Amino acid sequence: MSDAFSIETFLRSVAERLEPRLAALADAHPGHPRLAAAIKYALLGGGKRLRPALVLAACEAWGGDPADPLALRFAVALESIHTYSLVHDDLPAMDDDDLRRGRPTVHKAFDEATAILVGDGLQSLAFAHLLASDDPRAPQLARILAEDAFRMVEGQARDMDGEHAQLDEPAVMELMRTKTGALLSASVVGGALCAGVPLAAVTDRVRPIGLALGLAFQIADDLLDLTADTATLGKRAGKDAVAGKSTLPAIVGIPEARRRAEALLAEALEALAPLGPRAEPLRALARFVLSRKK
Amino acid sequence: MSDAFSIETFLRSVAERLEPRLAALADAHPGHPRLAAAIKYALLGGGKRLRPALVLAACEAWGGDPADPLALRFAVALESIHTYSLVHDDLPAMDDDDLRRGRPTVHKAFDEATAILVGDGLQSLAFAHLLASDDPRAPQLARILAEDAFRMVEGQARDMDGEHAQLDEPAVMELMRTKTGALLSASVVGGALCAGVPLAAVTDRVRPIGLALGLAFQIADDLLDLTADTATLGKRAGKDAVAGKSTLPAIVGIPEARRRAEALLAEALEALAPLGPRAEPLRALARFVLSRKK
Repeated sequence: MSDAFSIETFLRSVAERLEPRLAALADAHPGHPRLAAAIKYALLGGGKRLRPALVLAACEAWGGDPADPLALRFAVALESIHTYSLVHDDLPAMDDDDLRRGRPTVHKAFDEATAILVGDGLQSLAFAHLLASDDPRAPQLARILAEDAFRMVEGQARDMDGEHAQLDEPAVMELMRTKTGALLSASVVGGALCAGVPLAAVTDRVRPIGLALGLAFQIADDLLDLTADTATLGKRAGKDAVAGKSTLPAIVGIPEARRRAEALLAEALEALAPLGPRAEPLRALARFVLSRKK
Repeated sequence: MSDAFSIETFLRSVAERLEPRLAALADAHPGHPRLAAAIKYALLGGGKRLRPALVLAACEAWGGDPADPLALRFAVALESIHTYSLVHDDLPAMDDDDLRRGRPTVHKAFDEATAILVGDGLQSLAFAHLLASDDPRAPQLARILAEDAFRMVEGQARDMDGEHAQLDEPAVMELMRTKTGALLSASVVGGALCAGVPLAAVTDRVRPIGLALGLAFQIADDLLDLTADTATLGKRAGKDAVAGKSTLPAIVGIPEARRRAEALLAEALEALAPLGPRAEPLRALARFVLSRKK
């Protein structure tokens, strides 16, 4: 599989499986048509679907079926939580962004009250969707999702602190572990649980891999903000420096930050090596986390 | 029991059982101290704890133990969801309120970004807390909570519509059924499920009682906004009229709105009559929904 494997094809196939399910989630809740339209606008904004891809690749890596219905359901729930966090992070009182994935943010395309409600509603829908499964493992996944969703909120609070004061390196590491690391590790953890790995083994062995990938992803994101342009990113480039945000590259410099991201990737790849060929999609995703251009 | 029963004593006993649990929920998540402090400020704001009281009274009414650990856990989760909705409803982009229960609202006592994150975090904590139970009925309760939490968001979206345009009577009824009715009926439904009433019977017979109480509660709220003063309410009185909000009293007049609230209460009391003395706390709560002064 490894020679023929294309990360772009894999990501596209995940997006093609996810997006009809995300659209269906909005369509199944038409009670308030404008809210439903705004939810759909947010969900179908053309994201990379990295977290769903991690869920399905992790499920396959640990011996599960990459088309496992529970894994797909978890992927939809996780993407809903991720989407809500983007909608709220973009609000004027938070990062105040007008552009996301090359389109107006939800509060620009609709209005601020609607954007708040879209985020709130997406969080509820994530849990409702996952708990609608009759799979006995769904509640365990929902609990992990809830705990990591809270950690993500703590991370966003740390990110806000970093706008008012210079954070030191340990604080920036904790920011990354929570803000981005929580949902990325939940993706890998959830995929492994869907494959049947027992919870204790997941906590001991799988979560550290997810966290290493999460940290590498966030460092890559901060490097891209410094080195890429707005047209490529689909969101405002250089905004962290302008906002005086505390990031790892800002503290240790670009070369050292890149070196650390590569060490984290190597750590994840080494931990995944014993899983053999079935972990190739997950390894390819891990490499993509660093090599991506946006 | 009915002669000696005091609704004030009952509500106080519920608050005394709930509040240490709400404080513990914040204390158990100290990762970001300022966020944890703001969550605690929001949770311990001196609310009536009506939804928790409904959970415990409904559990008792249908033959359960009013100290049932799952019912208490559900009550905490429900109050967290309710609290998050108040924090977000008070935001400048929503109802723009400075005062809640006689104290500065969260975005006034802290800041707007923190208030957004407090609401987001409280929603995650509600599900994490409920799903941390090993009771096999917890996931069913979490699913109901997620679905009704989404309905509540739809109701808030309708409420925002009512600030821009005059809603007609059916739209106002749907607003009340979703914005307030969803969580109030979830309270009664969840309490009955904790008592062991099967889901189908709960959906058919218990939910309509919860919805009638929810509608009566919202009409009473709208009447209080028109007739009480700010000092008594602990929040700005007369603000609906100032905001041009569409409420049932504004559409059908105060006497007719009061008549309808009384009819809804009578409907709920009639449905509860066959349950006998064990439903007295729930009946007293139903009467309190209309007789309260704030």
